[in-house]
Amino acid sequence: MTATGTRSGGRAANELRPVTIEPGFVRTAAGSALISCGGTRVICTASVQEAVPRWMAGRGKGWMTAEYGMLPASTGERKQRDISRGKQDGRGIEIQRLIGRSLRGIADLEALGERTLYIDCDVLEADGGTRCAAITGGYVALALAARKLQEEGLISRSPLTGSIAAVSCGVVGGIPMLDLDYPEDSSAEVDANVVMTGEGGLVEVQATAERTPLSRTHLDELLALAQTGIEGLRAAQEAALALP
Amino acid sequence: MTATGTRSGGRAANELRPVTIEPGFVRTAAGSALISCGGTRVICTASVQEAVPRWMAGRGKGWMTAEYGMLPASTGERKQRDISRGKQDGRGIEIQRLIGRSLRGIADLEALGERTLYIDCDVLEADGGTRCAAITGGYVALALAARKLQEEGLISRSPLTGSIAAVSCGVVGGIPMLDLDYPEDSSAEVDANVVMTGEGGLVEVQATAERTPLSRTHLDELLALAQTGIEGLRAAQEAALALP
Amino acid sequence: MTATGTRSGGRAANELRPVTIEPGFVRTAAGSALISCGGTRVICTASVQEAVPRWMAGRGKGWMTAEYGMLPASTGERKQRDISRGKQDGRGIEIQRLIGRSLRGIADLEALGERTLYIDCDVLEADGGTRCAAITGGYVALALAARKLQEEGLISRSPLTGSIAAVSCGVVGGIPMLDLDYPEDSSAEVDANVVMTGEGGLVEVQATAERTPLSRTHLDELLALAQTGIEGLRAAQEAALALP
Amino acid sequence: MTATGTRSGGRAANELRPVTIEPGFVRTAAGSALISCGGTRVICTASVQEAVPRWMAGRGKGWMTAEYGMLPASTGERKQRDISRGKQDGRGIEIQRLIGRSLRGIADLEALGERTLYIDCDVLEADGGTRCAAITGGYVALALAARKLQEEGLISRSPLTGSIAAVSCGVVGGIPMLDLDYPEDSSAEVDANVVMTGEGGLVEVQATAERTPLSRTHLDELLALAQTGIEGLRAAQEAALALP
Amino acid sequence: MTATGTRSGGRAANELRPVTIEPGFVRTAAGSALISCGGTRVICTASVQEAVPRWMAGRGKGWMTAEYGMLPASTGERKQRDISRGKQDGRGIEIQRLIGRSLRGIADLEALGERTLYIDCDVLEADGGTRCAAITGGYVALALAARKLQEEGLISRSPLTGSIAAVSCGVVGGIPMLDLDYPEDSSAEVDANVVMTGEGGLVEVQATAERTPLSRTHLDELLALAQTGIEGLRAAQEAALALP
Amino acid sequence: MTATGTRSGGRAANELRPVTIEPGFVRTAAGSALISCGGTRVICTASVQEAVPRWMAGRGKGWMTAEYGMLPASTGERKQRDISRGKQDGRGIEIQRLIGRSLRGIADLEALGERTLYIDCDVLEADGGTRCAAITGGYVALALAARKLQEEGLISRSPLTGSIAAVSCGVVGGIPMLDLDYPEDSSAEVDANVVMTGEGGLVEVQATAERTPLSRTHLDELLALAQTGIEGLRAAQEAALALP
Repeated sequence: MTATGTRSGGRAANELRPVTIEPGFVRTAAGSALISCGGTRVICTASVQEAVPRWMAGRGKGWMTAEYGMLPASTGERKQRDISRGKQDGRGIEIQRLIGRSLRGIADLEALGERTLYIDCDVLEADGGTRCAAITGGYVALALAARKLQEEGLISRSPLTGSIAAVSCGVVGGIPMLDLDYPEDSSAEVDANVVMTGEGGLVEVQATAERTPLSRTHLDELLALAQTGIEGLRAAQEAALALP
Repeated sequence: MTATGTRSGGRAANELRPVTIEPGFVRTAAGSALISCGGTRVICTASVQEAVPRWMAGRGKGWMTAEYGMLPASTGERKQRDISRGKQDGRGIEIQRLIGRSLRGIADLEALGERTLYIDCDVLEADGGTRCAAITGGYVALALAARKLQEEGLISRSPLTGSIAAVSCGVVGGIPMLDLDYPEDSSAEVDANVVMTGEGGLVEVQATAERTPLSRTHLDELLALAQTGIEGLRAAQEAALALP
Repeated sequence: MTATGTRSGGRAANELRPVTIEPGFVRTAAGSALISCGGTRVICTASVQEAVPRWMAGRGKGWMTAEYGMLPASTGERKQRDISRGKQDGRGIEIQRLIGRSLRGIADLEALGERTLYIDCDVLEADGGTRCAAITGGYVALALAARKLQEEGLISRSPLTGSIAAVSCGVVGGIPMLDLDYPEDSSAEVDANVVMTGEGGLVEVQATAERTPLSRTHLDELLALAQTGIEGLRAAQEAALALP
Repeated sequence: MTATGTRSGGRAANELRPVTIEPGFVRTAAGSALISCGGTRVICTASVQEAVPRWMAGRGKGWMTAEYGMLPASTGERKQRDISRGKQDGRGIEIQRLIGRSLRGIADLEALGERTLYIDCDVLEADGGTRCAAITGGYVALALAARKLQEEGLISRSPLTGSIAAVSCGVVGGIPMLDLDYPEDSSAEVDANVVMTGEGGLVEVQATAERTPLSRTHLDELLALAQTGIEGLRAAQEAALALP
Repeated sequence: MTATGTRSGGRAANELRPVTIEPGFVRTAAGSALISCGGTRVICTASVQEAVPRWMAGRGKGWMTAEYGMLPASTGERKQRDISRGKQDGRGIEIQRLIGRSLRGIADLEALGERTLYIDCDVLEADGGTRCAAITGGYVALALAARKLQEEGLISRSPLTGSIAAVSCGVVGGIPMLDLDYPEDSSAEVDANVVMTGEGGLVEVQATAERTPLSRTHLDELLALAQTGIEGLRAAQEAALALP
Repeated sequence: MTATGTRSGGRAANELRPVTIEPGFVRTAAGSALISCGGTRVICTASVQEAVPRWMAGRGKGWMTAEYGMLPASTGERKQRDISRGKQDGRGIEIQRLIGRSLRGIADLEALGERTLYIDCDVLEADGGTRCAAITGGYVALALAARKLQEEGLISRSPLTGSIAAVSCGVVGGIPMLDLDYPEDSSAEVDANVVMTGEGGLVEVQATAERTPLSRTHLDELLALAQTGIEGLRAAQEAALALP
């Protein structure tokens, strides 16, 4: 953000970055999407495994879980692979737990039967908001995989009870803003991620005050911005799922 | 919670569990506290290391970070140690990142100088709300260590800009409630953790809808409950720090 | 030890440090104790698992094993967690093998049935003799868990054939001494750990000459000192187990 | 391959699958390419790090190394991430060593100066020949990064002494064939990977007889097929590098 | 190699180093051999396990696999153990995959039944060509174990369809040479490993041009040299297996 | 041991198994020995590294440490490598700590200067008493390396203050016995390892009562047996070191 409050590309405070979702990007996956939100691009795939983790076995219901990774060149400076460092990045673990919880928020695990749906989100290019892009794109991959399972007759009703999307927002230079890019995120006083269903229900709210505490007024404004953003993302999801 | 809405021990919906903080519980630490919130007990220690992580070196400022663990017998069924499983528990990583961010929310890292303050939070007994107890007790350990550093003349002003505490709340059976114990947490529709400064500023809000989306009305009620709870915790912190 | 041979606190060469054992310190454990031996404090818990390791399955007998850890702030300088270093501390492994062997020395694994008793010993404060305190306190945790298993009717006779305790001793400045604290241990020529049953039978003897070889005379004197010490520890164990 | 020897898609025995190389696919990388060889797609990036591994420091020359991974959904059945299994896949290690050796075969490490070029090859979709696609696409990523380093004036001459490409071939049903897809590879008697410079020099030959030993005649035929294939790949590389 | 092209010990370009194979070197193994090729010595053992890996179970056939290690003192400078570094050496993984593939090239896994044969190759002294020595000596260990299984009546026919041996060769100073020692290998332009059956069939060819590409003429010469070398190694294997 | 108390091979209770020490067994090591004690054979090497661990740097003194491993085929059933299991065997860690402590018991680390001596002990065949064989053979490897350092003028006086050897003993069927083989060790009531200097000073005593506590009388008898055994081992060490 420049000193005069203009955002990169002349964006308004309540404006999303351009979003595109390319369904079926990975042909070997049961469902997939390449989502672009401005300079952030994430490959999302859904894979089906005909078994559940041991602790869930025998209950007649399925499981959904997410994994999140960053390709080494996705950030300006090369990011070492987790396997080379010997352990998974803590930030990545926190993010993939959020993605998994969010997607399970619209899951009907009984409808899924004793199988596991893995949502893998691998960041191709990172410019802020990768966890939200992962949830939004991950939903498209998931919906495509669910459709495929139904078409193949493996399940009789959808394992999804609705749709879900996520957007970041924050307070930058005292101004609440929607969908922060990386430079904005780095200088934000408050950084929030909001996950909502297609019907506008809150599934997860995470707000962190980095420098100065967050006021209730700002929290309300951020939630309102998020709602606007989610509507735009919901439209992009529907367009991607409507493709033949 | 029983069917009639009575909480265990006859607690009201906006009532904290009994809280006690024993300062100086670990004599080998620079600062320490044993915090009890109902059936949850957490050992909190602050340790000083005369160096910063490599990526922070040479900037004349310090670092604060937290680690969270659970003693194997702290839950009913024995919890395997991380080192035996070969990797740290994802939930523990997510929690310790929250604790670290929260405590850094009141840190003046320039005042700390080139040293690291480690806050270790080890759960002795778990009955819900361990991450919040860790933040609340961790602050006491931190304040005692900061006081010691000042008394020893190693730093000239406090590395803390205020106080901080955290409390959980949630919606159980349709009713917003403060400070959930484990059975309440397990059956909650919404589960939230709220971190606030002593002056009532929000530092972190995390709300997760487990079963049904969260309404804005409920979110407002939860934040109000949290504020009440934080005041009670703040009093316990002050009492602990006022001990000779 | 001062130059004149006086021990810290005016202790005699054959005198134990003050010992206290608080039974039931961890309410979530099947049995537990907080043992203090001078400046050393160890949290000991016994947990029951209704299964045995795979290599023991199907033999109708149980298993007992111990794990030993140090809380990061238990030593003056912060000790990094094993999981952060990526592997368990070799010293800790050596110690937990000694604790497990010692406790199995009084075990009746047939009486236990196909279940595992885990004894977890976590050092809260370290001032020498932590492995011996862990065995002595671990026995109390174990006896309480065994009593609980019997009271619940899960087993028909005690899985313990007697009691067990351990004490360190050493040669410091040419003088055999009982129950070394950390400064004494660091300057000792010989360092020994002796594990004995309540009836005075030797279960494990480990003597290490750090600087000058150990003479047979000194070995005999150390074993005699140990026997005295074990009697004191045995009294503290009995007092703890006699509490209502 | 069908019983009559017809290949999938009506391909001749000495015919490459359709190959396309999209340069600049990852904008955050110093150089990048998305290579498609039939149903195989690999994301290749080159990243520059202004340092060399410790064992190479101070010699005034650079280092080039490669890493190879497969996205979890790249194969039909989901492939677990290395970090979840706790160690890198042996096959992946063997492949990335081959990629690194091959690319270093055209490197002028003195020209590179004390910096490291990482070539990361992440398989998006696997249908046979991923290691060869990684080398062929990796060269394009490398050449683009080298060009960028020269344009930025960081190096004065190219760190590459030529071009390099790789192709697989094998004996299937007694017939030597070029560029095997996954079904062909799975039923091949002999499987070979050949790496050649743009001038036709052999850099690496790896031939493995899976079922019946390889005759010298067949080896000669495979090398001739490989040469034909490399020419086709070389043309695709040049086209990609000629794009503005 | 000296400037005049004379090899160490006055060896001719097409001459093997002295080779000896001591069968039965490790009495606790089902089959074993200590192979010496000049200054390279490798301990090879074959161990039988009455089970197959989970992914092979229930097919009525067995499995053969190899592991390769270097004793810490086997190279001039001490080589850290894999377990101390926390992960297996990439070079070792590449080598043990080659050894396993080569030995499986002469395996009749149906004849083996549902059991696993492990070939462990541990380098005692390394002076070039360790992977080839491991294959050549590993075959002797394997053949002895196979003989033992047959003598004990556990299998009714040999699980081996023939014999196998391996030799290195390379181009050094422009001259193709057989069986490189470490100094020759370090200065070679081309380094190749060739695995052949006793009947002269090629099982694996790996040629790497380290500095200048490999010409077809040189490749032909290397393969011819390898054939000569394999014959010598085959004689040593037969002599070892003929011992009473 | 048979029911009549006769030991395998007609050995007397106070008789060592045949011991041979082959010095210089590993030519790439600074010092080495292959020690055989009955059916137990251990490869011992000493390697010199011109640096000390970071925590010892700058004090002008050296370090000595030991590592212990078992080759996979050294026991009847194949023992999985530590690196395949992902962590070092606890028993191995306990043993290598004993070996290191014992050898440091005769070390003059100032005389060594700022370098590290690694003693690697790899068990070729295990039939009881491997840790004692490792200490006894490790001393020969160490003495040879020390001699080499002196001959090369790298150090001016020996870094060893004497010699050291170790032997196991135990109570089997009520009878104290020297140098237990594996079957004896498995059925022993008491198992002890005794480390002594060449002059007969005790360096380490470890006695474990497996089934029934150890009496003082038996402990005395075991120490006497050990002294006899050490004399025999000392003679074998001297013979090995006297070889040209």
